[in-house]
Amino acid sequence: MRIDGVALADLARGAAFLGSGGGGDPHYGRLLAQAEVARHGPVEIVALDSLADNALVAPCGWIGAPTVSVEKLPNGREAAAGLRRLERLAGRKIDAVMPIEIGGGNGLAPMIAAAQLGLAVVDADGMGRAFPESQMAIFNIRGLSACPAILTAAGGSTILIEDSDNLAHERIARAVAVAMGGIAHMVEYPLTGAQARENAMRGSVSTAIRIGAAIREARSGRADPFGALFEALRRSGLYGHAGELFDGKIVDLERETRAGFSVGRVTVEGFGGGEQMELLFQNENLIARRGGRVCAMVPDIITIMDRETADTITTEKLKYGQRVKVVGAAAPRLLREARAIAVVGPAAFGFTGSYQPVGTLDRWEEG
Amino acid sequence: MRIDGVALADLARGAAFLGSGGGGDPHYGRLLAQAEVARHGPVEIVALDSLADNALVAPCGWIGAPTVSVEKLPNGREAAAGLRRLERLAGRKIDAVMPIEIGGGNGLAPMIAAAQLGLAVVDADGMGRAFPESQMAIFNIRGLSACPAILTAAGGSTILIEDSDNLAHERIARAVAVAMGGIAHMVEYPLTGAQARENAMRGSVSTAIRIGAAIREARSGRADPFGALFEALRRSGLYGHAGELFDGKIVDLERETRAGFSVGRVTVEGFGGGEQMELLFQNENLIARRGGRVCAMVPDIITIMDRETADTITTEKLKYGQRVKVVGAAAPRLLREARAIAVVGPAAFGFTGSYQPVGTLDRWEEG
Repeated sequence: MRIDGVALADLARGAAFLGSGGGGDPHYGRLLAQAEVARHGPVEIVALDSLADNALVAPCGWIGAPTVSVEKLPNGREAAAGLRRLERLAGRKIDAVMPIEIGGGNGLAPMIAAAQLGLAVVDADGMGRAFPESQMAIFNIRGLSACPAILTAAGGSTILIEDSDNLAHERIARAVAVAMGGIAHMVEYPLTGAQARENAMRGSVSTAIRIGAAIREARSGRADPFGALFEALRRSGLYGHAGELFDGKIVDLERETRAGFSVGRVTVEGFGGGEQMELLFQNENLIARRGGRVCAMVPDIITIMDRETADTITTEKLKYGQRVKVVGAAAPRLLREARAIAVVGPAAFGFTGSYQPVGTLDRWEEG
Repeated sequence: MRIDGVALADLARGAAFLGSGGGGDPHYGRLLAQAEVARHGPVEIVALDSLADNALVAPCGWIGAPTVSVEKLPNGREAAAGLRRLERLAGRKIDAVMPIEIGGGNGLAPMIAAAQLGLAVVDADGMGRAFPESQMAIFNIRGLSACPAILTAAGGSTILIEDSDNLAHERIARAVAVAMGGIAHMVEYPLTGAQARENAMRGSVSTAIRIGAAIREARSGRADPFGALFEALRRSGLYGHAGELFDGKIVDLERETRAGFSVGRVTVEGFGGGEQMELLFQNENLIARRGGRVCAMVPDIITIMDRETADTITTEKLKYGQRVKVVGAAAPRLLREARAIAVVGPAAFGFTGSYQPVGTLDRWEEG
């Protein structure tokens, strides 16, 4: 599959949804990717199964607070610089790049470098959504190393985290991103083709494109874009059931940029007044409570969307007064395994209580 | 010159003084260096002029808050790991290591790796004292690059800052050190023999040894150790005049560990009561005021010493009630040049007013 302008816009729309509010707003990423594709030609998306066992696969994306990403623009060469450095380090060419997370702007980021460098992008990613911390990648959950990792930033600095356990790697990379101005590009968890095939989130790039296309087509045909979204998720093979958690207006918002994250809470009130949903976020929406009762939590996807257009509103773009639907969707199966829940479940974010899948909880209106 | 147990103790004593209160307490560094020398044999100190033009010289030391260094002990192999990594990066052997700063524990640090790896140590350093920030090295003042730099920490992580301007390098390295637990070993400003010869602080290692020996010999001969210190500085060729700034007891102390530094202020009161000296520090003592009037400032050396033994009290070891002398000494000539004062003078630390050399100010009692 080769993708260009329209597919990139679909990918941006689908990845924004899968980001669960995080991964960074895909707007600039889409513009940059479309410009690079117009210059260099379409990007080839390849299936996991087409990779040779010993292929070199480079997951990559941006690390830092999304609130910074909309103010501090990239120079557009950070990813290419990091990927070239990995090639020198490995002493060989990269066979394909991969979004470290399919969520938000990071679902688009590898397309830019792939177009510039003539590299293929694997139809897979490392999280099946977006998560705020590097060690939440499935590759860490499966025991693979994040190192060597390469950070590059708009100012021209290059930092290698050569050797580190994966938790220290996140801590160090986060500190470096903050020191580099709040955000940096990172190539991490370099994989063999065999490792990618066995561990990555299969088909997530094409799924994101299909989700984005379904919303676009429903809108242009004046059909319900939310129904189209839910249907696309159900048919994806990677996700599953999805539904509306709440419908209302944003009436309260607290958000701050702290320690390299955008953290806060947002309250949505029903149009009849009275009933409210509260969502807590750390880059991504982590938990949704309705009338004090939890109705969705990490790692399930919780996304706030414009109630008319079904455009995703990432956490850094939330504003008082927005009229929204809150959508919940089942996380990929790999993230619901016990060893994954330990790393990306509610306890990993400091919430008490065990993980309950979305749809088994109260107040679920399945789409 | 080959140095072993006694000379290492002298070096520790002399470097503690030259650290201007910073560089980290040399106690553990001395014990570690003496143990390694007992195991591997004496360390060879070589003159700058013996270096070949194309020799590879590796300045190194610890970065972080000295308050952490006395609680979080090294594993003893951090420096060796960083130096070996530089050799792989450079594709050649290191010819000699050099203290990045001659002050405090960092004056000792290279001896440990030199003993372990059988490397020589150059009789020179990058600061002629200790400074809190990496870009305060004479090598930055002279336009050389800190990169590639290599950070290693007790936990086993290795980070390369490959490409960065020298200010961003300090910011990134500091953030990495904090993320690594508050302190890390760093190899930085790799030099050719010619660059080292033209820019480094000439003879500072042997000067520190002579200062330490002078204090030791005066004490054992029941002579005045302060007089011996001042005489050793005057005869060093690198420093110059020195004298007592104040004599009294510590009556107030504020100190906190913040953003990878130990910062605070200490007040010394004269034994007659009434008159006080206040010193402000950021790892190192930066400025000394007596009765509200500045009487010494960076880059001149301001060291607080036990008034009986002339043992240096580094800033993280200051305590209420200590009976001390505050000593001032002229900084090396290279640090008094205008281009150096811009980087290491009082304005670089946020103080108003221009640099006035110690000894030209009030209340100076030359030794």
